[in-house]
Amino acid sequence: MAKYVYAFGGNKAEGKAAMKNLLGGKGSNLAEMTNLGVPVPAGLTLTTDVCIYYTNNKKKYPSQLKAEVARQLAVVEKKMGNKFGDKQNPLLLSVRSGARVSMPGMMDTVLNIGLNDTTTQGLIKQTGNERFAYDAYRRFINMYGDVVMGVPHEKFEQQMDKIKTARRVKLDTDLSAVDLKKLSAEYKNLVSRETGVKFPDEPMAQLWGAITAVFGSWDIDRAVTYRKLNKIPDHWGTAANVQAMVFGNMGNDSGTGVAFTRDPSTGEKLFYGEYLLNAQGEDVVAGIRTPQPINKAGKQKGSKAKSMEEEMPTNYRQLVAIYKRLEKHYRDMQDIEFTVEKGKLWMLQTRTGKRTAASAVRCAVEMFREGLIDKKTAVLRVEPDQLDQLLHPMIDPKAKVKDIAKGLPASPGAASGQVVFSAQDAEEWAAAGKKVILVRNETSPEDIGGMNAAQAILTAKGGMTSHAAVVARGMGKCCVAGCGALAINYAKKQLVVGSNMIKEGDVITLEGSSGKVFLGPVPTVTAKLDKNFKTLMSWADSFRKLGVRTNADTPGDSKVARDFGAEGIGLCRTEHMFFEEDRLPWMRKMIMAKDEAERRSALKKLLPIQRRDFVGIFKAMAGLPVTIRLLDPPLHEFVPHEDAEMKRLSREIGIPLATLKAKGESLKELNPMLGHRGCRLSVTYPEILEMQARAIIEAACEVKKAGIRVLPEIMIPLVSHVNEYTYCHERVVQTAKKVMAERKVKVQYMVGTMIELPRAALQAGRIAEGGAEFFSFGTNDLTQTAFGFSRDDAGVFLPEYVDRKILPSDPFQQLDQEGVGELVKIGVERGRKVNKKLKIGICGEHGGDPTSVYFCHRVGLNYVSCSPYRVPIARLAAAHAVLVNKK
Amino acid sequence: MAKYVYAFGGNKAEGKAAMKNLLGGKGSNLAEMTNLGVPVPAGLTLTTDVCIYYTNNKKKYPSQLKAEVARQLAVVEKKMGNKFGDKQNPLLLSVRSGARVSMPGMMDTVLNIGLNDTTTQGLIKQTGNERFAYDAYRRFINMYGDVVMGVPHEKFEQQMDKIKTARRVKLDTDLSAVDLKKLSAEYKNLVSRETGVKFPDEPMAQLWGAITAVFGSWDIDRAVTYRKLNKIPDHWGTAANVQAMVFGNMGNDSGTGVAFTRDPSTGEKLFYGEYLLNAQGEDVVAGIRTPQPINKAGKQKGSKAKSMEEEMPTNYRQLVAIYKRLEKHYRDMQDIEFTVEKGKLWMLQTRTGKRTAASAVRCAVEMFREGLIDKKTAVLRVEPDQLDQLLHPMIDPKAKVKDIAKGLPASPGAASGQVVFSAQDAEEWAAAGKKVILVRNETSPEDIGGMNAAQAILTAKGGMTSHAAVVARGMGKCCVAGCGALAINYAKKQLVVGSNMIKEGDVITLEGSSGKVFLGPVPTVTAKLDKNFKTLMSWADSFRKLGVRTNADTPGDSKVARDFGAEGIGLCRTEHMFFEEDRLPWMRKMIMAKDEAERRSALKKLLPIQRRDFVGIFKAMAGLPVTIRLLDPPLHEFVPHEDAEMKRLSREIGIPLATLKAKGESLKELNPMLGHRGCRLSVTYPEILEMQARAIIEAACEVKKAGIRVLPEIMIPLVSHVNEYTYCHERVVQTAKKVMAERKVKVQYMVGTMIELPRAALQAGRIAEGGAEFFSFGTNDLTQTAFGFSRDDAGVFLPEYVDRKILPSDPFQQLDQEGVGELVKIGVERGRKVNKKLKIGICGEHGGDPTSVYFCHRVGLNYVSCSPYRVPIARLAAAHAVLVNKK
Repeated sequence: MAKYVYAFGGNKAEGKAAMKNLLGGKGSNLAEMTNLGVPVPAGLTLTTDVCIYYTNNKKKYPSQLKAEVARQLAVVEKKMGNKFGDKQNPLLLSVRSGARVSMPGMMDTVLNIGLNDTTTQGLIKQTGNERFAYDAYRRFINMYGDVVMGVPHEKFEQQMDKIKTARRVKLDTDLSAVDLKKLSAEYKNLVSRETGVKFPDEPMAQLWGAITAVFGSWDIDRAVTYRKLNKIPDHWGTAANVQAMVFGNMGNDSGTGVAFTRDPSTGEKLFYGEYLLNAQGEDVVAGIRTPQPINKAGKQKGSKAKSMEEEMPTNYRQLVAIYKRLEKHYRDMQDIEFTVEKGKLWMLQTRTGKRTAASAVRCAVEMFREGLIDKKTAVLRVEPDQLDQLLHPMIDPKAKVKDIAKGLPASPGAASGQVVFSAQDAEEWAAAGKKVILVRNETSPEDIGGMNAAQAILTAKGGMTSHAAVVARGMGKCCVAGCGALAINYAKKQLVVGSNMIKEGDVITLEGSSGKVFLGPVPTVTAKLDKNFKTLMSWADSFRKLGVRTNADTPGDSKVARDFGAEGIGLCRTEHMFFEEDRLPWMRKMIMAKDEAERRSALKKLLPIQRRDFVGIFKAMAGLPVTIRLLDPPLHEFVPHEDAEMKRLSREIGIPLATLKAKGESLKELNPMLGHRGCRLSVTYPEILEMQARAIIEAACEVKKAGIRVLPEIMIPLVSHVNEYTYCHERVVQTAKKVMAERKVKVQYMVGTMIELPRAALQAGRIAEGGAEFFSFGTNDLTQTAFGFSRDDAGVFLPEYVDRKILPSDPFQQLDQEGVGELVKIGVERGRKVNKKLKIGICGEHGGDPTSVYFCHRVGLNYVSCSPYRVPIARLAAAHAVLVNKK
Repeated sequence: MAKYVYAFGGNKAEGKAAMKNLLGGKGSNLAEMTNLGVPVPAGLTLTTDVCIYYTNNKKKYPSQLKAEVARQLAVVEKKMGNKFGDKQNPLLLSVRSGARVSMPGMMDTVLNIGLNDTTTQGLIKQTGNERFAYDAYRRFINMYGDVVMGVPHEKFEQQMDKIKTARRVKLDTDLSAVDLKKLSAEYKNLVSRETGVKFPDEPMAQLWGAITAVFGSWDIDRAVTYRKLNKIPDHWGTAANVQAMVFGNMGNDSGTGVAFTRDPSTGEKLFYGEYLLNAQGEDVVAGIRTPQPINKAGKQKGSKAKSMEEEMPTNYRQLVAIYKRLEKHYRDMQDIEFTVEKGKLWMLQTRTGKRTAASAVRCAVEMFREGLIDKKTAVLRVEPDQLDQLLHPMIDPKAKVKDIAKGLPASPGAASGQVVFSAQDAEEWAAAGKKVILVRNETSPEDIGGMNAAQAILTAKGGMTSHAAVVARGMGKCCVAGCGALAINYAKKQLVVGSNMIKEGDVITLEGSSGKVFLGPVPTVTAKLDKNFKTLMSWADSFRKLGVRTNADTPGDSKVARDFGAEGIGLCRTEHMFFEEDRLPWMRKMIMAKDEAERRSALKKLLPIQRRDFVGIFKAMAGLPVTIRLLDPPLHEFVPHEDAEMKRLSREIGIPLATLKAKGESLKELNPMLGHRGCRLSVTYPEILEMQARAIIEAACEVKKAGIRVLPEIMIPLVSHVNEYTYCHERVVQTAKKVMAERKVKVQYMVGTMIELPRAALQAGRIAEGGAEFFSFGTNDLTQTAFGFSRDDAGVFLPEYVDRKILPSDPFQQLDQEGVGELVKIGVERGRKVNKKLKIGICGEHGGDPTSVYFCHRVGLNYVSCSPYRVPIARLAAAHAVLVNKK
């Protein structure tokens, strides 16, 4: 015969932590604490099997269940020293759900079971507090009436409002014991009226009503939906925990509190918490009374508040012994809840404590040093995404501010500054020593200068991989993108958001990690990369298999990334180099050339500039591989958008304005993302590719001559057909041969390709046959084309897609493993089938997203590449990928 | 021991047609003719094995080869009655290559082998024509010197020019026998000078030099490249044919000609050809003398030219007997070449005759009736693409015109008209009774009216599936797209193309099937769909397995397509309905709505209009399925582009101009192809989907009540994730239930989806699980996203891609079977795995392209859908797919 009921309490429990599937998370944890000798209010857990039986058998319980509960309940009474339904000293019970995994707030709970007109008198006797007893009673009727008997909560509220109006008071707490007694009676009438059934006074009937409601709540709509979304199987069921109630408000020998076994902000090894004398748990949270510190160490300087250590020294000592035991047992920092009832300490809960990144890192490193955990566990204790907090300023958590709008968390950090509406203004204001925030509908490559000059960037359109977002992340600069609530008027230089109107020069603050926008300046704080951080990262590195590279376009970025631990450059976007002052005119002249000869003459001017760029990058990455992508964007991006700019260009390069405009017009595309770009440019203008290949190899020769090891990897973008690849590959190789012969230096280099189009993924085998020595998955473009989503335009509907759960997350943030991921897998398999040594990486924005990094590890990539500020995140995620897979 | 040499001539050959792999196409066919008793100049074929041996053995021949050739050559001499190298009556030989498949012009040929100073005297004796003999001699030295000895042809030309200058003549034919004799000597000196080797006089040495050159030419660059491009294996090798020369210019008992066994223009059963008395084959082609008709039936009325039938009655009778034998033997219309040498008829070649579509259809049907071929063969005799000629006007082949520009053959047909530069002008001019050609950089949906009013459309940008191309094909209207040579100036209302300037009102002519643009009017001709055509199509229908539907948006189009044999509508694009005068303002009001309520009120106005459209289409397609795609394009397409239009709209719908403009601006997208469109619109504005579903089901109820069978299939566009599909599917089903309850009619309907994104193809299984009852592959968008090519922008580089053989063909014209095709295959497999009855079709433009149709058949689709005018092509292609697969 199956055992359906597991008792706990009084130093002994029938269950344990390992029985989570049968007893649920809550039940098994209560059992575990009990067995540890921690004083836990006694109770019993009805197993998940009961729930399953109930569901499968037309809402009937196993025949022996009632008897078993009754028998075990007697044990609880004995352990607690009171009696369920007793007139003098009544035991009150709670019934709580508890599934295998936490489903917060999804299922039902009933407290204070066992109260009726008679037992309430017993409670008064025990507590000497009539108001408390009737308050408990009316809360019970409300909760039971709602949860078990289906009377809507509003109906009770209406009754409450009526009595408050009559008494001319505003708060529930202003009502007297008499009022509450009256209210209890009215509540019971309300239930009878609404349901046609008398409110049950018999405690055992109440208990079974509550148990049935809790099991039944496994199948209410919100729980079913939650399970569907979180992929929790319906057949798991929930357990039900019947537990003795304890009260911290039974006088000055009672109290309640919460505490952390270490400092959740800093990780310091310090018992840290708050408590209230003669109070219930909810009073600590509600903020009506100011909680007192739990110990002397936690007291604010000069504070007169007494600590628990001083007021309840015995219970405090018991608590310290218990927290130490718990931390040692669970081998992690614990967040505990306790109540002292008439001098007796009860532990109500212990769970892993939430903590800041800094705290997580310190706890992990110190717990390893204390011998509490091993290195693997230490590494797994810090969530990769958390590290962002350490790498960027944040809004000071103590600042009391409310955001005025929320956009996408495009690039982390926080910054305040004066609003400007154009890149040019940003540059001018910044040159004049002002801190500015650049606000645009969207940004384009010619805004680079202004973006660089600004403290942060705010855009109304565009998603997580829009131009603004990608560039800002590369710069490590705060950016909030796709903030649809903004209505920007460039002409008037103002923006309206809700009821706020913001003019040029007004100060705003952005927080990039949350996407929040604040009015005025807001203080920010920056965490430090301390020794603990470095230690933890070195442990992570010792576990991970995936290489971690960075996406960097300048020697400066390369340096930052290298300091963060990047092992090479996975993506150097040469086009970003062309937007700088000294080269843009030549780039434009090249684009505007009327024939190949003119184009070649402009390219000749660009050659030494590019070479210089590469020399700088090769030196910064000495000894590490550098993947350089050949020119990728459509040429139109380099053409000036404004008339004045066009005129200046016409003067600068000596081409008539009308000709320039006509040429600019002819370059415009309806869908530039799918237009004349990537290797298509190299096919139609092979001279551009030749110039770039020459600049790379010349730079490599120069650097090698200087005695520095250089490993260039030349990457051909946007290949869809092997013939495009071989066309470009051959020209690169020819150019390289020529340059090396001229310079009399031999450098090692590789030629490979981006896999960023679905067709390329499918044809990866043929492309490998075509000679590609490495692949780099461009998952930004691959996501765009697999889904048919323009990253610049999807901001209009993607948030709604995520809200409505049509997509689990923004696929530009987290790699869509099911769809885009299958293309990656196919690409890897087919590429490696031809060349099993094929070096394969990823250089889309996903390279810095932990779940995407796990995926990259699983499918066997050699490395991920991400923006410099995400390199530590990727390193840690890569370690997690190994350790979690091992488990 | 392998047999390396096969003789033919004198009624007996050692080879036959079936030995093509060993003897090559030419050699096996010469053998076949010989065996048929047709008089063929005798010769011998050196097999492809010799070529392979030669290649694999360091350019050595098999040891026994020389002896075998010498032995067989003696037989040839006996058969021809002259002798190789003879002073009196020399046999001259040709050596020609001949691979398994034709590689026109890729390999070498040497004629007149055996001439030297001595044998030339013999030739003079035989012909009595000294000039002819020396002309043959100098041609031989030139050809041999070039092909065998590697002296560039220009060098010979320079000698020739020198002598012409000296003689003050312009043409080769003006040189005398003496001149040519001198030239021959100079040519021989030239060869010695250039090569340091004496020109070989010994005929046998000449022969082996020529044979070696021919075998060697298998591996020259152009041949290797040609094989690579046409996927011909290198190891096939070529045969070499050594054949006796015959001359038609040996006097008035000699002549030469070409003929067709039936009329290649009409297919009439009539022997048809041209000949010249006392002439060489090249004279017929060169056009120096006007050829004479071959028989009296072929004489132009009133012509005085004598026919062969009159001038050489005996040889003519022999020729008639031979052509009949050949046609009967080959069971197809033959294109034959013959020469009469001194009263003796020789057949030089017979091959399948090229013919017009009309001729192909008539020949096929009549040959079946004559018992010459079976029905399957008849159906296979007509190339599906050829039918286009029958369905559209063409430029009169007799018109002597030169095109001024060439664009993409976007939609077939031909038309002349006056140039206009805006859709509005097109409508106004057409209303005034003028025939106009609409010329634009590109067209957009608001140009529909003007496109409809125009005779034809010419665009400077855009590819085969650009808006202009797709709409024009749907209308069966001629269109030339992506004609990059045009420089259009809208302001001045003129266009420049090369040195021509064309103003508004000037007449031009377009030919859509070739993409050519002509200045001025050009006469056109239209073929008729006669009884033979209908017969052939009915045979095709009896074989094919694939269904053929049409893409049609109006009752008119539906009717046309049904007349062409469409078995349903595979794609009805509802958005095209919204551009008409009476509904565009409501559509725009709906788009400009500030909230859902306003949107719903505009939709209410659109509902009855849409319902009426569907009623019309359902009636036109009574009893056949109609697939209706829900609104697909981004809303911005419906917003006016011009200021004046915007103002008018503001007045019409009573929304302030500034508000309209701001809204219009906010709808603009950087990449509208990947933007807020397709089912994404239905997710964010479900009320649009509900209106359309309601209109469809209401219309279906109405039509069913009228006693007409109706089979609507509601298609959800641009699905990438199953959740999008189910979101829309559920709303369609709910709406349909509601409508049927209201109307008290039950109609059968299906709900399904387009598979037009790579992710959808990969996730086809899940989408089928999500309830999709049918799939329709939207291969236009699938091609765009798989390749990352915008069909509107790819016109800039795609032609170059095809020219450089980077792509075998424009993937928007012919389905890319390797890449896009794999996605289709994956989609079919995964969809059918879940639901093996899943109905699957294709509705991209590829549905009307024969090779794409073959592919659709192979992967097991249920139907293809194409524009009305391509329905017959698809029907025939679907039959070929079955018949060719069977072979």
